Amino acid sequence: MRYGIIGVGGVGGYYGGKLAHAGNDVHFLFHSDYEHVVANGLRVDSCDGSFVLPHVNAYRQAADMPKCDVVLVALKTVNEQLLKDLLPPVVGTDTLVVLIQNGIGVESDVQAWLPGVQLAAGLAFICSAKAGPGHVNHQCYGSINIGNYSCRDDKRINELINDLHVAGIEATAVEYSEARWKKAVWNMPFNGLTVALNTKTDKLLAEPATEQLVRDMMMEVVEASHALGVENVDEPFVEKMLSMTRVMTPYSPSMKLDYENRRPMEIGYIYSRPLAIARQFGAPMPKLEMLEAQLRFIESQSK
Amino acid sequence: MRYGIIGVGGVGGYYGGKLAHAGNDVHFLFHSDYEHVVANGLRVDSCDGSFVLPHVNAYRQAADMPKCDVVLVALKTVNEQLLKDLLPPVVGTDTLVVLIQNGIGVESDVQAWLPGVQLAAGLAFICSAKAGPGHVNHQCYGSINIGNYSCRDDKRINELINDLHVAGIEATAVEYSEARWKKAVWNMPFNGLTVALNTKTDKLLAEPATEQLVRDMMMEVVEASHALGVENVDEPFVEKMLSMTRVMTPYSPSMKLDYENRRPMEIGYIYSRPLAIARQFGAPMPKLEMLEAQLRFIESQSK
Repeated sequence: MRYGIIGVGGVGGYYGGKLAHAGNDVHFLFHSDYEHVVANGLRVDSCDGSFVLPHVNAYRQAADMPKCDVVLVALKTVNEQLLKDLLPPVVGTDTLVVLIQNGIGVESDVQAWLPGVQLAAGLAFICSAKAGPGHVNHQCYGSINIGNYSCRDDKRINELINDLHVAGIEATAVEYSEARWKKAVWNMPFNGLTVALNTKTDKLLAEPATEQLVRDMMMEVVEASHALGVENVDEPFVEKMLSMTRVMTPYSPSMKLDYENRRPMEIGYIYSRPLAIARQFGAPMPKLEMLEAQLRFIESQSK
Repeated sequence: MRYGIIGVGGVGGYYGGKLAHAGNDVHFLFHSDYEHVVANGLRVDSCDGSFVLPHVNAYRQAADMPKCDVVLVALKTVNEQLLKDLLPPVVGTDTLVVLIQNGIGVESDVQAWLPGVQLAAGLAFICSAKAGPGHVNHQCYGSINIGNYSCRDDKRINELINDLHVAGIEATAVEYSEARWKKAVWNMPFNGLTVALNTKTDKLLAEPATEQLVRDMMMEVVEASHALGVENVDEPFVEKMLSMTRVMTPYSPSMKLDYENRRPMEIGYIYSRPLAIARQFGAPMPKLEMLEAQLRFIESQSK
């Protein structure tokens, strides 16, 4: 299978790099790193074994790339509409596009822009960041769940999962809506609160008032999921997420890292969209709504 | 009438100082400022005319004070239980105690501690701060509303209001619950949000997301007031508070000043108590509940 990677940061660089390292035919779209990668290759420092790919199929423009069987999109969602132009050159009739992106609503938007495209959600459980030009630093974890959104043939998804396994990546097929909303259970409280309170996951759970606030917010997502008819997003899952986070290394979620590095925050797809959907289904999430307002304020003041 | 002043900071020093300057018999309880005031008197710098009282009736301990006809309490509520010991020496059978304090629930607590005492709420609309030992800096405003809580004879309240008028202070008798909850409409959003978002009133209202958040929080107080049967706290009042705040000088509420000066914040009576009462009456205030949790977190981190 031929792979295309759109967005070669910590996440796209890791999955694309691993697939290429395992011998797959992988084509990477670079932006500012293009010259560096052509000259020096792509370097992946990883807790699971570091490697360098001296020669990668690197492109500066999507229009120069070949049609691919699977395209992994690992761009930040802050410029989601770029996909209107980036995807058509690499997408053929049978291409599967996997959106390894944060939040709720990315598949629905891309589908509206490109009605024929076959989409899946990629839900990555990974700590990986770009360390420099053409240089990925993969610290820990790395599994990915794939949720079919509009792929007409499960065979393509199974082929992808198989290739990921061969490349040493834990990958599992999951139910799309359940997977996206389960991820929101964790993402919605922790991304924003670590920014609003300038802290990390461990401190939020160490203070009783904010531990309860995180739980309340998680339960708001649970109630929204119920209103939407999404299954298996329930209170036991909330307690599981809290327990899991308690034993994690003190963690700064991606929005906190974006904020610290003065990059735009993904408020739209992590907050505004799920909040709008939940309201529409009669399940407003008042505390998460307040967090969205605080993030909008923080963003406006940092400009 | 003989007056006692418990808590001689920006507020107690201003009202007590004005009453003494007008010739009333006023007795002040000092803490760390006692020696300074005995040696130098009490200085009030005021937009309405500055003055110095060279000789004031100053006390170091409540036990040394005489019984008073009216006691003005202008202590921060963070050590409210001190009133159990400070009030009995100055309170006689007919004494009126006016709690010029923030939040909801102070009268109810003091009444429970000292069942016989006659109480009123003092709702001050004033910008005044302690500038140094025995030195008050009164910047602007100064009116005070008096709400009868448990005073058996309105005559005493009217005498107080009359003395305040003679001393040049605008004072009005108001309905107790309505006045306390109307003050909460403004206090609850602005005190905490200026701390949580490290900002002032003007910036919160300039950003659409937080302007709406302030309005949502004010409406939570309105709905709690309705559940409690408190009248005249309604949406037009919310819009009036928003308009009033828009034309105010950019303002840091008392909690923001406490936070900036590393003093404890009045989270208990400004948030926890009204939130508990509202929950009890079936009208939870989820956004204000979240703000309380954030303030508890901020306080825990600043220790």
